Amino acid sequence: MIRSFHPPRRILLGPGPSDIHPRVLAALSRSTIGHLDPAFIGMMDELKVLLQRAFRTQNPLTLPVSAPGSAGMEACFANLVEPGDLVVVCENGVFGARMRENVERLGGRAVVVRDEWGEPVDLNKVEDALKAHPEAVALAFVHAETSTGARSDAAALCQLARRHGCLAIVDAVTSLGGIPLEVDAWGIDAVYAGSQKCLSCVPGLSPLSFSERAVARIRRRTTPVKSWFLDLNLVMGYWGTGTKRAYHHTAPVNALYALHEALVLLEEEGIENAWRRHALHHRALAAGLAALGLQFVVAEPHRLPQLNAVYIPPGVDDAAARAMLLADFGIEIGAGLGPFAGKVWRIGLMGHAARKENVLACLAALEAVLARFGVRAAGAGVAAALAAYTAAEGEKAEGHKGG
Amino acid sequence: MIRSFHPPRRILLGPGPSDIHPRVLAALSRSTIGHLDPAFIGMMDELKVLLQRAFRTQNPLTLPVSAPGSAGMEACFANLVEPGDLVVVCENGVFGARMRENVERLGGRAVVVRDEWGEPVDLNKVEDALKAHPEAVALAFVHAETSTGARSDAAALCQLARRHGCLAIVDAVTSLGGIPLEVDAWGIDAVYAGSQKCLSCVPGLSPLSFSERAVARIRRRTTPVKSWFLDLNLVMGYWGTGTKRAYHHTAPVNALYALHEALVLLEEEGIENAWRRHALHHRALAAGLAALGLQFVVAEPHRLPQLNAVYIPPGVDDAAARAMLLADFGIEIGAGLGPFAGKVWRIGLMGHAARKENVLACLAALEAVLARFGVRAAGAGVAAALAAYTAAEGEKAEGHKGG
Repeated sequence: MIRSFHPPRRILLGPGPSDIHPRVLAALSRSTIGHLDPAFIGMMDELKVLLQRAFRTQNPLTLPVSAPGSAGMEACFANLVEPGDLVVVCENGVFGARMRENVERLGGRAVVVRDEWGEPVDLNKVEDALKAHPEAVALAFVHAETSTGARSDAAALCQLARRHGCLAIVDAVTSLGGIPLEVDAWGIDAVYAGSQKCLSCVPGLSPLSFSERAVARIRRRTTPVKSWFLDLNLVMGYWGTGTKRAYHHTAPVNALYALHEALVLLEEEGIENAWRRHALHHRALAAGLAALGLQFVVAEPHRLPQLNAVYIPPGVDDAAARAMLLADFGIEIGAGLGPFAGKVWRIGLMGHAARKENVLACLAALEAVLARFGVRAAGAGVAAALAAYTAAEGEKAEGHKGG
Repeated sequence: MIRSFHPPRRILLGPGPSDIHPRVLAALSRSTIGHLDPAFIGMMDELKVLLQRAFRTQNPLTLPVSAPGSAGMEACFANLVEPGDLVVVCENGVFGARMRENVERLGGRAVVVRDEWGEPVDLNKVEDALKAHPEAVALAFVHAETSTGARSDAAALCQLARRHGCLAIVDAVTSLGGIPLEVDAWGIDAVYAGSQKCLSCVPGLSPLSFSERAVARIRRRTTPVKSWFLDLNLVMGYWGTGTKRAYHHTAPVNALYALHEALVLLEEEGIENAWRRHALHHRALAAGLAALGLQFVVAEPHRLPQLNAVYIPPGVDDAAARAMLLADFGIEIGAGLGPFAGKVWRIGLMGHAARKENVLACLAALEAVLARFGVRAAGAGVAAALAAYTAAEGEKAEGHKGG
């Protein structure tokens, strides 16, 4: 006899899903209506506008794919790449490698620009690759590499793509809502994100936006999109403007309620304030982690505030330590992936999780767990974080005085 | 300024989504935990068992695809069809046509067996096609055609497939939970369903099951699966057994809570009882619709209890009538698709929606709406339904006496 499932209470400080805002969970469980109901169509229109504002774009083709971020990634490549097309793919972590695999499965050719895990994408190498391959149709890169915590210079990479006549395809799964992302100002042509990272929404949707140049490329295709489910020609018929919507697939109605509410919350806060909040709590966490003796994987200028990758100290058992954090403190942090497995922890501060109480709880719990492996800090982590918060308050007050 | 969205209250009697059970909505909004959390892994293991029981199968490869039914369909074809493969596809409505398109986009060849909309798949025509194409690798058909309300003889079709050395690929989006579906007993090789039909769960997931024969075919592939997101070799790594799960994509955690609860509810009721409940309320609705003078599209032996397609009476404005039902009674019924647009209504009695109060409310509201177009019935619809319920009670009492 299998019974109803009641999840334990967790503080989600891993690489996503992050903590969900209570208002988002409330929206999620509102009563389901039909996906062609006029009330639902009105909600979809609002959702498009909210996504355009979050992506900072006027792109008419802006919508949430009805599946997780990996499907958003696939939607970009499946629509923009035809067999034989060459794509320059930047690989500096798990998600760049996944982009390459997408290109290859679709019959495209991937020219890979490799950087060390933890490094941002190297602009010079990308420029060399684009010069060596003038036939490239797109440059693809990850803005915020969730596997390493490195931020790449998306604006400069998009400029390179434009200069070499390529579309810029950008993975913004972890960046949207957490750090500046300017789809129109930077000239991004295709971008996908995730609902479950800095938007504080449940996992399962992938916001996506295509520029007019990208749409023109879809329209010029000479081969059909391999995927029926992800063919944006068809998806647009449902998410298009006007009252006449063509049925494509049954929309995940309740998940879309949740995303709508998450984006309303983002507007209430103001997206620039959300970026500042992520930066503030990252500084406090980073100060605390340093005081605990933990070293960051990524050099300071390229660090993502929302994803803090640190080396596991010698003598500390990775799995045992994370299990203690989970069992004794209800805190989830992320394990390392690939070459970082067993060597790195990934501490997320994403969306609703990026709050002072979580930073302090995380540092206190980490100290307690590390102590069991002989790494002692005497409260230094929490103290350093509190000092960072106090300093930030001071700066703010100074700023107000000056202004 | 866009505000929080509050959906109107509806009774969902269309082709899906259907009414969600309140316990499913409650499960949906439980607090999110990580998709690699041991508590979540335990829930996934239960979910697999619950799905195996609902599908009546021992197939180890039984899991929910993290996207709607259309993606479940695509998962079947993307994994089982390689370029050049020939598939016999039965087309007697929208969803058979979509199967054909899937095969063709993947580079396969589709031999189409066509039947009129509203008819079940013709076994003789299928046998002829299989004889004419001994190279066929699969026979694909829709068990319960949601666009017409016709039920095809899945057991016999699977037998034909087996006899001709083909895999049987079955669309059970609308059948699972509503009418008998016996994956192992009938010899189905690949089957996909939807969460939002007779399971009373929110839309967005597609339960799927593959036989050992189908799995063997995936393993024998000589070309990679075109879709990274739907590649079951990778998906299995996450849904596989044991504690070591490979990260593939971020699971839609809350939607999976909801599906788990929906399947727990199905077990509490007993799946045979659920089939009987759908049949009972269909009989009452059919009696009422007949009394209102509405004609069924599908001949009686092939009718789906959960999807009642009826011709719109002459002189009744389709869109206006459905808008009145929605605005004045909060009842959603489905429009006709394709050749049935403007000519047919589709009245669903799926999952939690298949209840006496909905049958009576629907008939009463339909009578009121039809009266505005001059079609009068003087309460005959509700009276006929009540008589059908009374007769069913009588039969049950007789049965008890006899037994």
